[in-house]
Amino acid sequence: MQIRDDRLDALAQENDRRIVLLVLDGLGGLPREPGGRTELESARTPNLDAAAAAGECGLHLPVGYGVAPGSAPGHLALFGYDPLDVPVGRGVVAALGIGFPLQDGDVAARLNFATSDAAGRITDRRAGRIATEVCAELCALLDGLELAGAELFVRPVKDYRAVAVLRGPGLSDRIADTDPQRTGAPALAPRALEPAAGPTVRIIADFLKQARERLAGRRPANDLLLRGFAVRPALPPLHLRFAMRGVAIAVYPDYKGVSRLAGMDVIDRLGDLDQQMAALAGAWPGAHRFFFVHHKYTDSAGEDGDFDAKVAEIERVDAALPAILALAPDVLIVTGDHSTPAVARTHTEHPVPFLIRAAAGRPDAVREFGERACAAGAWGVVPANALLPIATGYAGKRRRFGA
Amino acid sequence: MQIRDDRLDALAQENDRRIVLLVLDGLGGLPREPGGRTELESARTPNLDAAAAAGECGLHLPVGYGVAPGSAPGHLALFGYDPLDVPVGRGVVAALGIGFPLQDGDVAARLNFATSDAAGRITDRRAGRIATEVCAELCALLDGLELAGAELFVRPVKDYRAVAVLRGPGLSDRIADTDPQRTGAPALAPRALEPAAGPTVRIIADFLKQARERLAGRRPANDLLLRGFAVRPALPPLHLRFAMRGVAIAVYPDYKGVSRLAGMDVIDRLGDLDQQMAALAGAWPGAHRFFFVHHKYTDSAGEDGDFDAKVAEIERVDAALPAILALAPDVLIVTGDHSTPAVARTHTEHPVPFLIRAAAGRPDAVREFGERACAAGAWGVVPANALLPIATGYAGKRRRFGA
Repeated sequence: MQIRDDRLDALAQENDRRIVLLVLDGLGGLPREPGGRTELESARTPNLDAAAAAGECGLHLPVGYGVAPGSAPGHLALFGYDPLDVPVGRGVVAALGIGFPLQDGDVAARLNFATSDAAGRITDRRAGRIATEVCAELCALLDGLELAGAELFVRPVKDYRAVAVLRGPGLSDRIADTDPQRTGAPALAPRALEPAAGPTVRIIADFLKQARERLAGRRPANDLLLRGFAVRPALPPLHLRFAMRGVAIAVYPDYKGVSRLAGMDVIDRLGDLDQQMAALAGAWPGAHRFFFVHHKYTDSAGEDGDFDAKVAEIERVDAALPAILALAPDVLIVTGDHSTPAVARTHTEHPVPFLIRAAAGRPDAVREFGERACAAGAWGVVPANALLPIATGYAGKRRRFGA
Repeated sequence: MQIRDDRLDALAQENDRRIVLLVLDGLGGLPREPGGRTELESARTPNLDAAAAAGECGLHLPVGYGVAPGSAPGHLALFGYDPLDVPVGRGVVAALGIGFPLQDGDVAARLNFATSDAAGRITDRRAGRIATEVCAELCALLDGLELAGAELFVRPVKDYRAVAVLRGPGLSDRIADTDPQRTGAPALAPRALEPAAGPTVRIIADFLKQARERLAGRRPANDLLLRGFAVRPALPPLHLRFAMRGVAIAVYPDYKGVSRLAGMDVIDRLGDLDQQMAALAGAWPGAHRFFFVHHKYTDSAGEDGDFDAKVAEIERVDAALPAILALAPDVLIVTGDHSTPAVARTHTEHPVPFLIRAAAGRPDAVREFGERACAAGAWGVVPANALLPIATGYAGKRRRFGA
């Protein structure tokens, strides 16, 4: 149910006005008990409430009715795409997240180090959560292994997580995961999901064989699991669609990855919200006109089932809001990429509250930022990928359509 | 304006949760006088109001903006289809409604017995509303008449209504109705709406000639009218799209027919709401996960222009609601298939109020079930075919989309 009017991209025009998209990951919530308040409704958010009162509110659906979105689809929709048109594999998100320069046709997969017993049965799918430094050492052991038919890159992400990339002619990403998704079973052999993937499967099998030889005796990281084989999807970059260069101000790799996919630049080496606010202020006078600020821990708290922690994270972002407003963005969007209610402990299908505060906007009657308050907002329920078009409209970045 | 994301069907997953769709046919209404209350707003509905208060509300559009829907499109949209993609002729609805096993390529038409005078002019388009038993006798007279080029089946429906089905190679359903839609004129000759329908027209003309010979002297049913020539459309069954088997708990044949079209099972021989509630409870422990309960008389009262009778029918359904809630459905949808305001005496294009009550839902601020109350609900105005996706989402019957 996303909008798909690519023809409107032709209206895009450059100007100096600046749009900030502030994403509280997994923002949408549910009451802790029937009749109660959601996380956002419970949080003390004077700054977000003031922005809602000065702006326009509504709820958005990241993918469609009744669909719980992954993080990549959720963000692609906020960046103006229809996520159904842009299937993004986990491998691609991971590779782009660490800044790996994926080329056309490269096949990327998420690589998790794991522990297996003498019989090859996986005993820990996360290798005891080894430190990132250990992960980097092990990746160096595997990076560049000689494979017949493809070049291999293995790069660390975080903890036990890494990325493997194959580069060569005629590779396919239609390969099943080797992760058995449980302990007590051996890793699965790579398996083709289409006949043309046969040669790629043989290259991967060769890689796994050599890798296990090198990792022997490296317990707890003596094994490895691959999943999310994917090639980078082609999509028109944001600066062509909306006539503005974007920059991601995010801490976590995956959100940098999905931003790169949309053609955005990325500021690296950010550790917390304060650093993000400083980076935003630092980037403000530059060439970017679209600033994507991402806060991860609302989602993490939701997935942990920690209602109070999610409330606290929302309040932390509220406290950071004045630093954004001090820059006087022409348009500010505040929303989430999906709902992660603490009572659900996972991404859910519930619509996500949003506010748009723009000098050129038309304020509605909403006076606070919350799920039920936004349900009474002027916009009602909209496709998530309508928000950036609305914002670019208010920023004067779209020409009039028609005579 | 219905949603058309068939790709999301791939997310469907089976589980044990149960969804009830309770349809009050023609539910949407209008005030009797300007400034007054609609039928639903006038009715005393403590149970529906409580369900609305515990759930989420909105209005839906069965086909599109400004379109008054027939019953088949209205229900197909509630079953998750875009009715514009599924043209369903009256003949097919009638044939499926009585459980006639339509085969691919069969052409079905609604057959109404009628009265004509010596000059062949129709004097009563309903043959004095003959009893169903008389209708059955007359159908037996016509069933199996020898036609060159097609096999013929004629089966009774109710009162003066019957179904004719032609089976044979190369038949077309592009045939104009023979019903003149008024008395004082003779029945129309069958007429081809495309050149390829010529041979079928000749078969139908032969049928009509033989039928009138057999009906001669059978006044008031000495003539017959055919309309709604149609072949059964192909559509993906509900259990494949939403990973749940559905069952229709309806009294009237047409609603069984449209349910069969969607691949649902049907419970036959139900006469009233009490029997429907008993059938629902009886089916509850079985293999079905989607239960469609249909109440016809709200629409009948609306078509009769009887405001008070429609109010009374709504209150009857309200009184039955506790029997449904006692089964503890995971998701309950209550709505109509279209609006039939008593002041309009016909189906209209007005959006239709709905409520969705789900344990996994996010209650909005609506406190009563009515057109204006629902207009302030969290969902605003949605396509009718979004309701089942929303319900399957809340029932956990859709996997997460994307990494």
